[in-house]
Amino acid sequence: MRSLRRSRDIPLLVSHARDGDPRAVARLITLVESGDESLPEMARALASHAGRARIIGITGSPGVGKSTTTNELVRVLRKRDHRVGVLAIDPSSPFSGGAILGDRVRMQDHATDPGVYIRSMSNRGHLGGLSAATPQAVRVLEGAGCDVVLVETVGVGQAEVEVASLADTTMVLLAPGMGDAIQAVKAGILEIADVFVVNKADRDGADATYRDLQGMIALGERTAGQWRPQVVRAVASRAEGVEETLDALDRHRDWLLAHGELDRRRAARAATEVEAIALGTLRSRLTALRGGDALSGLAAEVAAGHRDPYSAAASLLDAL
Amino acid sequence: MRSLRRSRDIPLLVSHARDGDPRAVARLITLVESGDESLPEMARALASHAGRARIIGITGSPGVGKSTTTNELVRVLRKRDHRVGVLAIDPSSPFSGGAILGDRVRMQDHATDPGVYIRSMSNRGHLGGLSAATPQAVRVLEGAGCDVVLVETVGVGQAEVEVASLADTTMVLLAPGMGDAIQAVKAGILEIADVFVVNKADRDGADATYRDLQGMIALGERTAGQWRPQVVRAVASRAEGVEETLDALDRHRDWLLAHGELDRRRAARAATEVEAIALGTLRSRLTALRGGDALSGLAAEVAAGHRDPYSAAASLLDAL
Repeated sequence: MRSLRRSRDIPLLVSHARDGDPRAVARLITLVESGDESLPEMARALASHAGRARIIGITGSPGVGKSTTTNELVRVLRKRDHRVGVLAIDPSSPFSGGAILGDRVRMQDHATDPGVYIRSMSNRGHLGGLSAATPQAVRVLEGAGCDVVLVETVGVGQAEVEVASLADTTMVLLAPGMGDAIQAVKAGILEIADVFVVNKADRDGADATYRDLQGMIALGERTAGQWRPQVVRAVASRAEGVEETLDALDRHRDWLLAHGELDRRRAARAATEVEAIALGTLRSRLTALRGGDALSGLAAEVAAGHRDPYSAAASLLDAL
Repeated sequence: MRSLRRSRDIPLLVSHARDGDPRAVARLITLVESGDESLPEMARALASHAGRARIIGITGSPGVGKSTTTNELVRVLRKRDHRVGVLAIDPSSPFSGGAILGDRVRMQDHATDPGVYIRSMSNRGHLGGLSAATPQAVRVLEGAGCDVVLVETVGVGQAEVEVASLADTTMVLLAPGMGDAIQAVKAGILEIADVFVVNKADRDGADATYRDLQGMIALGERTAGQWRPQVVRAVASRAEGVEETLDALDRHRDWLLAHGELDRRRAARAATEVEAIALGTLRSRLTALRGGDALSGLAAEVAAGHRDPYSAAASLLDAL
């Protein structure tokens, strides 16, 4: 079966993934991650599985305890008999081209559980970046029978917000002492969070963080019938507050269904995905010119102040 | 002179900006930020100023003290008689379309100093996002006679790394208790930092953060003649370590010049800028289709599982 790990035989891989073979799942996601030319064929083979899984985004600054929290959520979801996929997205290493924490060192508690797939992804070379690759990886996990997919991203930058927008429900982790409530708003997280978790709630300042968050949510403009973000306290390292976190996620899921919001979010997500793939195709055509003389010659003129970047860009597009 | 604040007369605005009129500078950056159609003309008018200023990127997670540190750096640079521009980039609010902390509440110490321009920018609507807008805003500040431009970004995501790559020297702030050294590498910052500042160095854990950083730098693969990132301790809120920080930044500047690296970085930056503008143009053509039936119809088919996203993207590009 070693051949499965290097195969590009999409029908074979999809068929094995459907039967729950973790090697086939791993191989398909590797192909997604590397932007393999078989991606369109894979997407065709997996299209009919769209919408099978519940997708939960988990984000927050480095150090708030995302991995520990994800690990605990998996434990509780498994107790509830869900098949769980975890995508740990690492968009922050564009230069080294790889997630430094491999799948083996992450979340060893679930390493031998056949009902859990765990995978780190970087944006190595994928057309359209992670906003195109992530939904495709979710499709692979849906095809493999996952009921829930947890998408964990670091930080709160533009790329993370894009990834968060791919989830049905987005959960933002905070920890006391990581900056006050104004910093949280500065990072734009109030706008993407459906559920807040104040992790490390046994530490000094947790109550203040909790109160500040509640205050800012109360101040936020909200139209009638809109979801009001919930705030949960947790100490993930001691498995405290995990059931409560999942309850809050479930309440948001119920709200999405009751308001027809799930279909709306998923249609918007599909539009974003299609657009990202189209943009990735255009980007790759541009990048193909980078190796040639066209761009480097234009760039040298711009750097020397002999030409402005807009006229250089127009020349580049003419070359396309 | 109220007309200057609403003017689209680029030759007039550029001429006033050259004379150091802050209202003209502010207006030009507003035009940059909003992706105004006068941008190509502005770029032409400013092209010959390229490379005038030294550009220093400042990044780090929310809460590490970026604003305070920037404020202190400005103070020391002013003592050294430099004209200083500050661009505070807030890429994290794509939905609200605006930096929530306006220029007036930031860094009030320098609000009345005619040798300092301070400006917050969001990525509101700009073609190519901040990676296209930021160098253009830098050009405005260069045109206005700034010797040093500080570009401050929040977080460590993809967008921030792109912005950091626009600087001659990138400085990364850390604070004790914000996660250990593995978290720092996880966030990919070792790869973009020329100078590290361990801020809040009077707090518990500062020595451990300092040692961990030094250890990881020592472990990093580095070819002969490559820059070895420097680590400085500071307590920006008490103005401690600021001169030392600037000394480390100066050493990196000397190294860039001695190794011909400054020209190389600036040519690479110009290439990125030209590419971002070209990509922004293509993106706007795609987005123009979003309002029409083309994308929403395709997205509905994808969400329902009746079509795969790659064939939908191909159809979208055909419509272009």
